[in-house]
Amino acid sequence: MKPNVAILGGGNGACAYAADLKLKGSKVSLYEDPRFFSNLEEAVKIGGLYLENRCGLPNVSEGFANLDLITDNIEEAIADAELIFVVVPAFGQEAFMKAAAPYLKDGQLICFSPANFGASIRMSQILEEVGNNSDVLLVDTECMMYSGFKDDPTHVWVSGYKIGMKAAALPATRNKEAIEKIHNVYPEWEDWGNVIEIGLRNINTVFHAPICVCNASLIERAEEFLFYREGGSPSVGRVVEAVESERIAVCNALGLRSEPSLDVLLKWYAASGCKGDTLAEAMSQNPVYEWDYGPTSLHHRFLTEDIPYGMIPLEQLGEVAGVKTPVTTAVIELGIVLTNMDLRSQARDLKAIGLDQLSKDELVTYVEKG
Amino acid sequence: MKPNVAILGGGNGACAYAADLKLKGSKVSLYEDPRFFSNLEEAVKIGGLYLENRCGLPNVSEGFANLDLITDNIEEAIADAELIFVVVPAFGQEAFMKAAAPYLKDGQLICFSPANFGASIRMSQILEEVGNNSDVLLVDTECMMYSGFKDDPTHVWVSGYKIGMKAAALPATRNKEAIEKIHNVYPEWEDWGNVIEIGLRNINTVFHAPICVCNASLIERAEEFLFYREGGSPSVGRVVEAVESERIAVCNALGLRSEPSLDVLLKWYAASGCKGDTLAEAMSQNPVYEWDYGPTSLHHRFLTEDIPYGMIPLEQLGEVAGVKTPVTTAVIELGIVLTNMDLRSQARDLKAIGLDQLSKDELVTYVEKG
Repeated sequence: MKPNVAILGGGNGACAYAADLKLKGSKVSLYEDPRFFSNLEEAVKIGGLYLENRCGLPNVSEGFANLDLITDNIEEAIADAELIFVVVPAFGQEAFMKAAAPYLKDGQLICFSPANFGASIRMSQILEEVGNNSDVLLVDTECMMYSGFKDDPTHVWVSGYKIGMKAAALPATRNKEAIEKIHNVYPEWEDWGNVIEIGLRNINTVFHAPICVCNASLIERAEEFLFYREGGSPSVGRVVEAVESERIAVCNALGLRSEPSLDVLLKWYAASGCKGDTLAEAMSQNPVYEWDYGPTSLHHRFLTEDIPYGMIPLEQLGEVAGVKTPVTTAVIELGIVLTNMDLRSQARDLKAIGLDQLSKDELVTYVEKG
Repeated sequence: MKPNVAILGGGNGACAYAADLKLKGSKVSLYEDPRFFSNLEEAVKIGGLYLENRCGLPNVSEGFANLDLITDNIEEAIADAELIFVVVPAFGQEAFMKAAAPYLKDGQLICFSPANFGASIRMSQILEEVGNNSDVLLVDTECMMYSGFKDDPTHVWVSGYKIGMKAAALPATRNKEAIEKIHNVYPEWEDWGNVIEIGLRNINTVFHAPICVCNASLIERAEEFLFYREGGSPSVGRVVEAVESERIAVCNALGLRSEPSLDVLLKWYAASGCKGDTLAEAMSQNPVYEWDYGPTSLHHRFLTEDIPYGMIPLEQLGEVAGVKTPVTTAVIELGIVLTNMDLRSQARDLKAIGLDQLSKDELVTYVEKG
């Protein structure tokens, strides 16, 4: 018997989660913020979503997923869900956190996918703010499970399914409990470290903004180009590698677990034929990226999510650790000018999650042991 | 009677200077470094260069310029020259400085065009190093006089001729003397400030590297695009404007003369119809830039000259002045990774010109009064 699931979000990723898990046997409700619910109107009319497994991935379903509920009522959406996945860009999470907080109950698990830096920590604050003391299991994961795209409002297709995705609970002492519950729907997930380490693992942090900055005029002019394959030219790949090196150095200096993004990429997409000796090679040649076109606006989550919820926390932890991150900072600074947005004030850094007064050891104790 | 002129260099710019000044009545010798002299072989065969005034500029000549000497012998090239113009990228100047230093004589004027930061100061050191105490007038100017391109080794065409170009002598007490001599060939030049102020004026410092960084993959993939008109999209224009703001702030904090790059651009190219209310507008719409295609390699002077001889000195003077230059630093850092070159160690900063031990006042006194 598969667990009941609620998916919070309405974009490509959320629809892929909802359709695949429904086709695999869960009762699935899909909740979208009322402000954006009109995007799901067509799905409501036909009662679900079509899922196309474009690359014949062995672990992904295909067909029409007759969803059990598509709603903008959060209370109904999560009422009998054992597992709740929040699948929205990090800058959109807060609204879903606040909507769900009053209704979460003992025994429920809420998982942010991707979490980016600090999602579960922020969720724990919001639960406290609304006075909800239920025993809710908070889980961060490093990325989205699917590379998914929509052809139209009811058709989602996937080109990637990540094998070996890592997740951690807050506190990490509950990792085993969390991963056992998640294994009922995603047996490929692995528990790993703590939520700070998960927050620093997202490979999007390393890839997205550097490539955008080095292709800014193409993006702004909405010229068609393959984001990784063309936009990730060898020199741009070096910028990506430089940010990656800074990320590893920060993790090492703080005594945090890290894993090269190259290894992550090769493992996730081994079944799809991803190869390469360097991160730049694997990135530019990954078959999964064969249809990944660049954004057509600089106001895109590749900058507006990955900078404030990935790169700025990384830069800040570099300061804490005494590790220089000049290339990370360079990408942040140009991203701020290119988007014309004050991404620093929007960042979910240590201050935003209320942990800036903790020593490094206190911080690790908090996420490890609560 | 026009003064005798020597042009040092063999690229588009140097050929434009040589041909135009010859056609205007000077005796002109053209010298190129022996390592690159083969580039002038065809010109040697026919004894000169064809100049095309593509836009019908009122102050530019057209026709075949029968040069008086084309040589890789520096002593012969400058023997009877009253005015010597060094027209090479800043990273190439040192070889020409060292070649010319033993032969420069009383009464000669040597002008670096463009100088970028510190050219005349470095020349004065080299003269001292070779023990040449002649009274040579050293002049820095902010840019190249012509926007020039070559169709083939003997045909150069120009699309721009800068009205109101600024120059300063080292020391600045000799500005008047220098500008009077230059007026015999370029009556439109104006003397202005001192060589540090000239070094911080080059608009290329503000334009080139930011646009390259934001179009890095296009450049590396050698895709054809109009550098300013397409590469300078509105957001990229904001990066240019941000570097410009930092430049002005540094000048102000040091008590140095500055002038908005927008005003410079509008004045230079007024005759060509350049307009715009912002720097980004003027840059992207300037008719002179209608044929300016982007580089097809990141190892191009737009990065390898303008970063170490423009942006890094600007950043360093920002540190001296206590002015933050985060966007300038960001472009430098990404330029280093993109070119895979240690541009900081190649920079002609205060240390490279031996002035890093001087206080700000001593520095200004040196360039003003010698």
